[in-house]
Formats: sequence, structure tokens, C-alpha cells
Amino acid sequence: MKVTIFLGSQSDKSVMKKAADVLKDLGINYSSRVVSAHRSPELLEKAIDEAERDGTEIIIAGAGLAAHLPGVIASKTLIPVIGVPIASGALNGIDALYSIVQMPKTVPVATIGIDNAANAAYLAAEILGVKYPELREKLTSVRIKIKEDLAKDSVIDL
Amino acid sequence: MKVTIFLGSQSDKSVMKKAADVLKDLGINYSSRVVSAHRSPELLEKAIDEAERDGTEIIIAGAGLAAHLPGVIASKTLIPVIGVPIASGALNGIDALYSIVQMPKTVPVATIGIDNAANAAYLAAEILGVKYPELREKLTSVRIKIKEDLAKDSVIDL
Amino acid sequence: MKVTIFLGSQSDKSVMKKAADVLKDLGINYSSRVVSAHRSPELLEKAIDEAERDGTEIIIAGAGLAAHLPGVIASKTLIPVIGVPIASGALNGIDALYSIVQMPKTVPVATIGIDNAANAAYLAAEILGVKYPELREKLTSVRIKIKEDLAKDSVIDL
Amino acid sequence: MKVTIFLGSQSDKSVMKKAADVLKDLGINYSSRVVSAHRSPELLEKAIDEAERDGTEIIIAGAGLAAHLPGVIASKTLIPVIGVPIASGALNGIDALYSIVQMPKTVPVATIGIDNAANAAYLAAEILGVKYPELREKLTSVRIKIKEDLAKDSVIDL
Amino acid sequence: MKVTIFLGSQSDKSVMKKAADVLKDLGINYSSRVVSAHRSPELLEKAIDEAERDGTEIIIAGAGLAAHLPGVIASKTLIPVIGVPIASGALNGIDALYSIVQMPKTVPVATIGIDNAANAAYLAAEILGVKYPELREKLTSVRIKIKEDLAKDSVIDL
Amino acid sequence: MKVTIFLGSQSDKSVMKKAADVLKDLGINYSSRVVSAHRSPELLEKAIDEAERDGTEIIIAGAGLAAHLPGVIASKTLIPVIGVPIASGALNGIDALYSIVQMPKTVPVATIGIDNAANAAYLAAEILGVKYPELREKLTSVRIKIKEDLAKDSVIDL
Amino acid sequence: MKVTIFLGSQSDKSVMKKAADVLKDLGINYSSRVVSAHRSPELLEKAIDEAERDGTEIIIAGAGLAAHLPGVIASKTLIPVIGVPIASGALNGIDALYSIVQMPKTVPVATIGIDNAANAAYLAAEILGVKYPELREKLTSVRIKIKEDLAKDSVIDL
Amino acid sequence: MKVTIFLGSQSDKSVMKKAADVLKDLGINYSSRVVSAHRSPELLEKAIDEAERDGTEIIIAGAGLAAHLPGVIASKTLIPVIGVPIASGALNGIDALYSIVQMPKTVPVATIGIDNAANAAYLAAEILGVKYPELREKLTSVRIKIKEDLAKDSVIDL
Repeated sequence: MKVTIFLGSQSDKSVMKKAADVLKDLGINYSSRVVSAHRSPELLEKAIDEAERDGTEIIIAGAGLAAHLPGVIASKTLIPVIGVPIASGALNGIDALYSIVQMPKTVPVATIGIDNAANAAYLAAEILGVKYPELREKLTSVRIKIKEDLAKDSVIDL
Repeated sequence: MKVTIFLGSQSDKSVMKKAADVLKDLGINYSSRVVSAHRSPELLEKAIDEAERDGTEIIIAGAGLAAHLPGVIASKTLIPVIGVPIASGALNGIDALYSIVQMPKTVPVATIGIDNAANAAYLAAEILGVKYPELREKLTSVRIKIKEDLAKDSVIDL
Repeated sequence: MKVTIFLGSQSDKSVMKKAADVLKDLGINYSSRVVSAHRSPELLEKAIDEAERDGTEIIIAGAGLAAHLPGVIASKTLIPVIGVPIASGALNGIDALYSIVQMPKTVPVATIGIDNAANAAYLAAEILGVKYPELREKLTSVRIKIKEDLAKDSVIDL
Repeated sequence: MKVTIFLGSQSDKSVMKKAADVLKDLGINYSSRVVSAHRSPELLEKAIDEAERDGTEIIIAGAGLAAHLPGVIASKTLIPVIGVPIASGALNGIDALYSIVQMPKTVPVATIGIDNAANAAYLAAEILGVKYPELREKLTSVRIKIKEDLAKDSVIDL
Repeated sequence: MKVTIFLGSQSDKSVMKKAADVLKDLGINYSSRVVSAHRSPELLEKAIDEAERDGTEIIIAGAGLAAHLPGVIASKTLIPVIGVPIASGALNGIDALYSIVQMPKTVPVATIGIDNAANAAYLAAEILGVKYPELREKLTSVRIKIKEDLAKDSVIDL
Repeated sequence: MKVTIFLGSQSDKSVMKKAADVLKDLGINYSSRVVSAHRSPELLEKAIDEAERDGTEIIIAGAGLAAHLPGVIASKTLIPVIGVPIASGALNGIDALYSIVQMPKTVPVATIGIDNAANAAYLAAEILGVKYPELREKLTSVRIKIKEDLAKDSVIDL
Repeated sequence: MKVTIFLGSQSDKSVMKKAADVLKDLGINYSSRVVSAHRSPELLEKAIDEAERDGTEIIIAGAGLAAHLPGVIASKTLIPVIGVPIASGALNGIDALYSIVQMPKTVPVATIGIDNAANAAYLAAEILGVKYPELREKLTSVRIKIKEDLAKDSVIDL
Repeated sequence: MKVTIFLGSQSDKSVMKKAADVLKDLGINYSSRVVSAHRSPELLEKAIDEAERDGTEIIIAGAGLAAHLPGVIASKTLIPVIGVPIASGALNGIDALYSIVQMPKTVPVATIGIDNAANAAYLAAEILGVKYPELREKLTSVRIKIKEDLAKDSVIDL
């Protein structure tokens, strides 16, 4: 059970750390790489090859602006790619969302809300749960815990 | 290996048929249900229960406007949900895209491009490929075939 | 005369408090609940049942991002639901506005401006005024007071 | 039990007829007026006065472009106003949506999806249902009927 | 030669002061009023009547959100109305821009850039310059002065 | 009393004709020129010079896409310029609206709704009415006529 | 003097033909290739290598949706890349525009208006004109011809 | 080898300095001018004439709001113009992007991402590289250096 997280730039670290934190909590093994689809295409190819060889089962890729990283990875592997649009620059993530979600037929990227890297990790866990039932059980516990917490604090005083 | 396709409305059939066609081509078993998150919530719950019991491993859900269907399903099961925003009405699918992709933490929907139901099926196949290596091989063949076709018609006369 | 306020998350409290303040000023009885359409669907159902039984005549529901809460409530009760789109995250409330206002036929949500929870309370009061004439009189006084205040400070020195 | 429908222009008739049809089906009495907030302000004032005197309990107002009609009505009466943004012109209803929903504090308009006049009528019925229980029963029947119809056609063949 | 400035709210003062400052610089007489299209419609009517009687030749009106003020004034007088969309709230002035510029046929508002109240004053001066040649001369001097200043500082060191 | 209409391209004729028709109805003298800010800048300068010499008191300029024409004219004359954003191309007039309305300080363009050339003519008439009282009387008649027509057809049967 | 035109898909032919036509008119040698950044990445690499070897001095690349093609090419060569966003699908080219223009630092794409492939060719010619003065002369003739044509048809009858 | 940088306003200096810095690093000669398309059109013409005479081979022009500067320059010279949309004001650069990129046929502006002036310089260098092979070599070194740096810091610890 292995996830590889790709970041388009060092500046995406604080957003993407939220994915890593969730994976850690769920006991899912992961590694992280900064690779640029545009500035280091050869490094990216090498990193994808490595992911294919090291047993990576899901790739999470976060990028901002004209965020090609998730789509370019998806074009080079059949490991499912989860894309995280990152809000950076004047368009505040709309550019990244469109660049990630509007992929052409046969090369899908599973897109997640802007800056919502935690959900990329939860989605990765759900996907891995198709194969590893114990992970689905863990997710069930997470949901039950959340429900209990919400129930406790539900009645509020405005 | 089973996929369940949910449609928010009968009018989404022509778009969602593209998902069914790809699943058929890839030899993936699927069934289809029209259920409305808002107009038939009980039916939806029953259909999700059925999906959980009939061995469904991926859910594809397409909806337009304030497209809550994929998110509501995702809140009630840990089977991965792939959401297809459908362009209907004056906002041309932007409303559906935002309603599907911007889900809260812990309840992700794997979102696909507007009206791009075929990609929902390809993503489902990639996800199933994590568990079923023979499916990944099929997808590899599809990609090789596409590449060969593109290569043949690549040089054009404008 | 009873209003129930639903919040999609604890983080919506500061915005939704503006609704509570107006209700208080108008002498309208209300209670407040944090419930998540996605993270605590069963709690939400229970809370809606309670609202139906405790004489709630109007529901105000505020949520951000893919804001399904108001619509999901509207699908489960015929008590009128007033939706407040909350600006949170990179899309600044446009996602919540579209997710709330673009509801399908037969399941309307009475939508109010982004973050404008005070207006949700004023709308609730106008709706209750259809049944309770004394409330319409109170609203008339509010409007007269506002007009007098505006008239006093109308001429300014720029 | 009386609803008055206001249209900003003769060209809004085909959209707004959907509201009238639903009201008719639900046995709710209504009348319809074309009045322009900008081109016939005096006529509008007279029409609002009439509505106040003829027992109108809900106003539905549809308009396109810089759609001031619902807001201007809301500023002159405490009868609840339901606004229908109409898609006309190059901005396809976004202009009307913003012009209707973003009202200032104390003067709310209950806004409905673009061109979704049927929902304005359903919302009117829900609001009237606060006062007239028999109407809520009718709406319950409508919802049950819809659920039965959806259940019948739910399983489809894609 | 008289301009009346209308503000939709006290909170628009800092933006609209830029119009007043330009008028002062150009020696154009003006007065300022806070009036709300929605919260004080009668006061607005009185203020428009006064403007018609006190020789006002141009009206400048600034408002935010669903900014009806300029259009409502334009519907009640034939004095040219210059509208200033003000960026307030989550939509950052797009709502005000659409609510002001997309007016129906026969009731135009001369719309200016978001928050650009200074330009409302310059446009007022150009319009008054059609009748008062001495004002056009003043504007010519302003432009010459700006050109000289720009020419002086044109070559820069980046 | 003279208006000059500038068109950015021959393809803008059908939209801009609506301005000409209104001017004709109001008995306002006008002439029309196709000039491109980008493709015939010298011709544009000559045309502006001519307008200044032939007694033109208002300029109406319509253009699509990156619609610089109104702003470039406004930078070269102090005759008030009314800009008409024209919906052409994929962005449907939003590009033209932003390119016309967001002018820098001291160079305003009086902007009108997308494709709403008739309103450019009505605004021109209101501006000329500041100087020529007989024109304001004509506009008053137009408005009275519209009100009478609206009053006649106000009650409709939906 | 050689330009290579890349198309992201066979369906982009009618738009991109406009670039070819202009190049032909200007006597600039060109060839055309359909290559997909996502569906045939190896073919794309080969085609870029060929372009580098066959003396291509400018690349024009058109693509729709999440239009990665121009950016991916730009990441693999230092031949200047001109990107043409193509309006296809529900977002009408906004997705393609953002995916092409918002490139990260050091990997620019010279972006042109949506569907405006002719301008890609004119820009290519201007760029080649830096090196080949005879081309600039040709462009000068084109502009003079356009000016003469515009001047002839400038005065129109609306 | 000469580049001229034009700024629409003194306030664009901090953004445009990023272009100057890159040019300096690459050893490309440049000069900088603040000129306003609207407020100093004659100065702009003079500056363009100078650029044509002083051997300028590329023009970089940055502007905000209704950013006409790059397009107006492009209409007056055949030196390639690179446009930098600057985020200033409420629309955060979308206005500038549309005003620069959506140019009419025959007058292209090579548009770069919002506020991304560094990329304007890199694009200028790539274009000059068509003529000056030594510059392409320098750019190759820059890319190699970036790749090496990215490779070094690629593996991170999230």
C-alpha cells in the first residue's frame, strides 16, 4: 500500500502537507517529490518510472496556475492520479482547477477541491479501500469519530 | 468487478451513456439507476445500500445544476465516487462543477471534466486496475491503440 | 413562532450569528444546530425531524464550498428553507451560491446574498409575517426607524 | 390564499408561465402583471398597492439583465418577494442573479435558480403552507407522486 | 453648473470622496446625499425632486452589491446619471458592475470602472463641457499637465 | 446637435444600427464611421479631428473583443464618449465590457450594457438634453408613451 | 524560414487552418502535425525533435479544454511557442486560455486570443521579421492594404 | 540585441522589474519607459518611434485594468509586442488579461500570465534566440541549472 505525492513547486508544500498528514493518520505509506512538469520533464519521467517500480498504487499531484502536472503524469502512467488545484497567483486557483479537471478523453485526473489536499488523501484511502478492506474499516472509524464529535457539539448558542 | 452508474435525472442519459459505452468496451460489469438526491432521497439510500451489497466497487454519479448527487452518495458510502458535472441550464455546467468538486474535508468526490462521462469510466477502470492487473493491461492496449491511430493520422494538410 | 438555524460547520458561526441577532431583536424564538449534510447525515435527519416536531416554521441554513446543506434539508421537509451561501475558500462564496440557488424543480431553497445572514432572518420574519400580523408590524417599525436614521444623516460633506 | 406574479417585460412570459402552471396545479389563486421597475415606476407602485389591498400573500417577480424589479418591490412592501433571475442577453442570467440575490441588509429577496420559475411557485406554496396546512398536504402528495414516478423509472438501460 | 452625488450607504464615502475631490479641483459645484434605493425610497424620490429643482445637471451615483441606486434614479429623471460600481462584499464589485451597466432599453446609466469615482467626476466634467466651453478648457489644461508630468518621469530605471 | 457613431468593424453594424434608429427617432443628427483603433489608427485620428471640427457633441463607439476603440477615442478628445461593448467571439462580450469600462483615471468612457446600442443613443440624448431643453422634452414624451403602452398591456394572462 | 503547427486534436483543424492560410499568404513555409500532449506524448517528443532538426523557427500550437499542448512543447524546446486557446466544450475556451497563458516562470507561451489562430500566424511573422527584414516589409504591405480597405469603406450608412 | 520595456503607470514598476531582472541576467540590453496609452498618446508615439530607430527588436508592455497599452503599441509597429496583464483593482487582472489577449486579427499581442513579467523576458529571449544562437545557448544553460536545482531538492519530507 503506497502513495506517491508530487508537488509542482516547493511553494506548494504547506498545502500538500495536509495530504501527507491524513495518509500518516491512516497508516498509509507515502513518499513526496517536487517535480515540475515544465521545468524538469526528464526528472518527472524518472520519478513516474520509480513510482511504477516501487509499488505506488495511487499518485497525488498538486499544482497551481496552468497546472499541467497531474495531467502530464496521468498521460504517462495508468496508476490513478488525484489532482489538487492550488490557489496561487491572481486567479486564485480557478486556473489550476480548469487545467486539471478539463482533461481530454482517456486521460482522466480525479480532481479535488481547490487547496483541499486532505481530501486527496481521503480519496486515495477510499480507492485503496477497494483492494484493502482493512483500510475501509479505518475510514469507517474516522467517519464514526467525526459523527460523534459533530453530535457532541451540535447544539450551539448563537 | 462492478460499477454502478447513478444519474440525477432522465435528461442526463445521453451524457452518461458515454460512461456506459466505455465500461462495456473494457468488459466491466455495470448497472444504471436514475435517482435524485433531492426528489427521491429514500430511493437513493436504498440504491446505495444495494450497491454496497451487490459488490459495486466504484460509483459514477452524474448531475447538473446544484449537483448534489455525487456528494450525497459520497457521504453515505466509502465506495469511491466519481462525479460528472453535467452542463444543463444557463450556467452551462459551472454550477455543477463547483457543486461537485468543492466538497468538505473527509468526503471527497473524484471530479471529472464537464460532460466528460467517458473519462469517469476510464478513471473507474484505472482505479479497478489497482486491484485487477488484467484491467490495467486492457487500458494499456487502449492507450497503445490510440497512440497508433494518432501516429497514423498525425501529419495533416491544413 | 419558531425558527431553526442550521450551520454546516462550527466555522460558520460568526456569519450565522448575524441571523440570530436579528431574530432576537424581532422577538422571534430560535434554536441553532451545527449539522453537516455530508459528515453527519443521520444527525441531520434527526435534527430535521426534531424541527418538524418542535413547531419550527422556517429553517435558515448556512454553508460554504459545495454547500449542499440547505438543499438536502429542503429535500427532506416542506418547512421553507432559507439558504445562506458562505464565502469560505478560494472561490469566495460563488461555489456556495451556485450550490444553493440552482436547485432542481420542486425542491426550492430561498437564497440570500453571500454571507448576508441578517437578510435570512429578515426574510424569515417577512414569511412569518404572512401568518402573524404582529410581526409584520414590527418589521414596519424597523423600516420606519431605518428611514428616519437615513434621513437624519442623509446630507453629508464629502 | 393569493399570489401576485410580476414580470419585468412581456418577453419574460414563457419563463414565468412555468410559475403560473405550478400555482394552478396546486390550486393557488394568482394574478399576473407586467411592470417595469425602470420604465413604469408609478405603475409598479400602484400594482404593489393593489397587491397589498387584494390580499396577496406572496409576490413572485421575474426579471432579466440588471434585474431590479424583485428588489424594488421588496423595498416597498413587507409581503415576501421571490425573485426569478431570467437568462436574457449576453451574460445569460448571471447579471440577473447577482442583481437579485445580493440585496442589502433588511430588504431580502428569496432568490431562485436562473429561469427556474416553477421553483418560485413551489417556494410560494411552501411559504403559504406555514399558514395553510392543507397546502402542505398537497405538496406532500406532489412529492410522493414524484418519488413514485422516479422509483418506477429508476432502473434504466444505458 | 451643478452636480449631485448620491451614495447608497455611509460606507461608500471613502470611494465617492474621490469624485468630490475632482469636482472641487475643477471648480464644479456639487452636493452629496446618502440615500438608499431600497431602504429609503421616499427620501430618494425627494432627493431626486430637489436635484431637478436646484439646477443639478449631472447625477453621480455610487453603490455596491445589487447596486440598484443609479438605475432607480435614472428611471425617475432625465438628468444624465453616472453610475459607480463599488467593490464591497464577496463578489468584489462584479455584482455592482452588472447591476448598474446592464440596464434595460430607454433607461441608460453611464457606467464607470469599479471604485473609479474620480472618473465619474471627469465624465461629468466632459458632459458639462458640451454646454460650458470654459470647462472643456479646464479639462484640456488638466490633460496637458498630466502629459507634462508623464513626460518628465517617463524614462525610468528598472 | 450632432452625434458621431464609430464602429470598430463592419461586423458591428447590426448592433450599432439600434443606436442610429433611436437617434433618428429623436431627430438627432448623426453620421457613422467604421474605424479600427488597431488597424487604422491614422484614419481614427483623422475621424476624431473631423468630429471635433464638424460640431460633434457626443461620440458613440461600439467594439468587440479587446475593445480599445472607445477608450482610445476618449484619450484623444474631450467630447464625451459612450462605449458599447459588443458580444462577439467566445467570451460573449465580457472581454469588451472590461476593456471599455475599466479605464484609467482622467480618461472615462460612459459604458452601456453589452450589445445595448439603443441605450447609447438614449444616453446621448440625455446628455444633449443638459444643453438643449427641447430634447429633454422629447425624451419625456418617449417615457410617457412607454408608460402608457406598459400600462395598457400590464395585466396579462399567464 | 519555417513554422510548425501543432494541433491537439483532429477536431481543431477548422480553427487552426486560419493560421495556415495566413502563413501561406505571407509565403512562410510550414508543416502541420496532430499530436496530443496526453494521448501521444512519445509522438509529441519525436515531433518536437523533428521540428528542432528541420529548422523550425516558430511553433504554433492550438488546443482546447485543459490545453496542455503549448506548455508541454514549450517545456521541451527553446523554439518560441505561440499558443492558441480553442473554444470547445462547456467552458467555451476559458479553460484553454487559462491552461495556456498561466505558465510558470521560465517556460512562457506567447498566448493569442481564443480561436484566433490567424493572429498566431501574424505573430509568428512579426517574430520572424526580427530576423528576416523582407518579412517585415510584407507585413507592412498587409497593414497598408488593410488601412486602404478600411479607409474606402469607412463612411457607412446606418 | 535590444528590448524596450513599456509600463502603463509608475505603479507597475514592482511587477515589471521582474522582466528587467531576467533581461539583465541574460545579458540583454534594455531600456524602460512609463507611457500611458490614454494619458500620453503623443509621448507613446514618440517612444515607439524611438524604439524603431534605436534598434529595439522586442517590446515588452505591462498594464492593468482596461490594459490597452500593449495593443495600441502593436497597432503602431511591427516589432513583436509581449503583453503583461497586471493585477490591479477589483477584477484582479482578469480585465487586463482580456484587454490584452483578445486582440483583433492582424494585430497580435504575445500575452503572458497575469503579473508574470519574468516570463515576458524569457519569451523575449527565446524570440531573440531565433536570430542570435548564443542567446539560445544561454537559455539552455538556465534550463539546465533549473533542472539541476530541482533535482537536488526534489525528494522532500512532508
